[in-house]
Amino acid sequence: MEISIGQYEMVANFFSLTIAAMGAATAFLWINRSQVADQYKTAVTVSGLVTFIALYHYWRIYASWDEAYQIVDGVLVATGKSFNDAYRYVDWLLTVPLLLVELILVMRLTASETVKKSIRLGGLAAIMIVLGYPGEIAEAAGTRWLWWSLSMIPFLWIVYELYFGLKGAQDAQPEAAKSLVGKARFLVVASWAFYPVVFLFPMLGLDGPTANTFVQIGYSIADIVAKAVFGIVIFAIAVKKTQADRGAA
Amino acid sequence: MEISIGQYEMVANFFSLTIAAMGAATAFLWINRSQVADQYKTAVTVSGLVTFIALYHYWRIYASWDEAYQIVDGVLVATGKSFNDAYRYVDWLLTVPLLLVELILVMRLTASETVKKSIRLGGLAAIMIVLGYPGEIAEAAGTRWLWWSLSMIPFLWIVYELYFGLKGAQDAQPEAAKSLVGKARFLVVASWAFYPVVFLFPMLGLDGPTANTFVQIGYSIADIVAKAVFGIVIFAIAVKKTQADRGAA
Repeated sequence: MEISIGQYEMVANFFSLTIAAMGAATAFLWINRSQVADQYKTAVTVSGLVTFIALYHYWRIYASWDEAYQIVDGVLVATGKSFNDAYRYVDWLLTVPLLLVELILVMRLTASETVKKSIRLGGLAAIMIVLGYPGEIAEAAGTRWLWWSLSMIPFLWIVYELYFGLKGAQDAQPEAAKSLVGKARFLVVASWAFYPVVFLFPMLGLDGPTANTFVQIGYSIADIVAKAVFGIVIFAIAVKKTQADRGAA
Repeated sequence: MEISIGQYEMVANFFSLTIAAMGAATAFLWINRSQVADQYKTAVTVSGLVTFIALYHYWRIYASWDEAYQIVDGVLVATGKSFNDAYRYVDWLLTVPLLLVELILVMRLTASETVKKSIRLGGLAAIMIVLGYPGEIAEAAGTRWLWWSLSMIPFLWIVYELYFGLKGAQDAQPEAAKSLVGKARFLVVASWAFYPVVFLFPMLGLDGPTANTFVQIGYSIADIVAKAVFGIVIFAIAVKKTQADRGAA
């Protein structure tokens, strides 16, 4: 069963929206980097890196989607070039560890804690993504479920670490930044919860093209929240902490 | 024997990953350049130059790979345009001398030592790459071995100089930077050791397409480590030395 023209165009429009959002977030973060104190600049730089890498990949994703179909006499025809889902996973492999690093960096833990947490959470994130990919490209529901379940182990571990492991670090934040850091922790968990749900769409009884449309749009929205919106929150935390540090000095 | 669709796509995905990694490293290095003291800024700028040049070449490499094959009715067909391996060698000709220069620059030797070492190591690197190319494009294993062996002479000379010649310079580094400089020297030697091994893949009894897939993926990973990861380590050294200089002042 083929995807309809309406579905095809809607997905293309969502990809384009994501390109615009990622590009805008990158420019915002890098230009505004000078507004925060030196010790928070790296966190803001890395936030912009995440959206920059995503911008690149959505550019490729859009081009791949564009090349996978053609409209001939008002009918959508597959060109034979398949849509490359791998761009998304390569993107996550780079950006998901980095966005955990932004959160850790903006908290200003001790140097050794920063390195330890970055390596552990970044490593778990990489494992989670590598385990998800074989399921994503599988046709059989059983195979999808298998890899989904395996990938959920590091996923839940990360969520647990972020939610409970960083609780102590949040309490040590300056008063002005405390509630924003809490929001950032919540935003990671909430936006991340989206991904395994989107992954399941093809197994929820939706027909193929409809499920695929939901998957593409779902991941696009999740990426905008988890990368662009999250990056802006990290920037806002860096601004609050800069003000708090200056007030204390 | 032709390459399979799976191999073709895997290589394309690795090229794309390398583009993203090089672009991200370039942005990171150039934006964060303001974080280090003036005397280390050139080292960080050059580190970003190396990844920027690599970004350009991987863009060309990706496009050349894309144009060399077409998928027609689910079958991979060579288009007649051959994949251009020369981009890689032109890239190395520019970036390998430069990445030796980053390491020398961040060490802050005397001006005359800096120039002398840059010319000698940079020159040897250029000779090494020029000698490798005729072997890379040769079909006959005998020709590959011949140029590989010739290329190994400057290669081993550089590795020897880096490992033993820079030992004294490492001991003269500030305490805080000493272990990182040691890691950088080790990273050069370890990541460089990858290249001659990858070069040998076609001579190790692998069939043509499998060997070619390994060669392309192997060089991509080696380039990410030797350029992007190495550049971040050079930046970290510059930050440590900036802090040490400020502490001493």
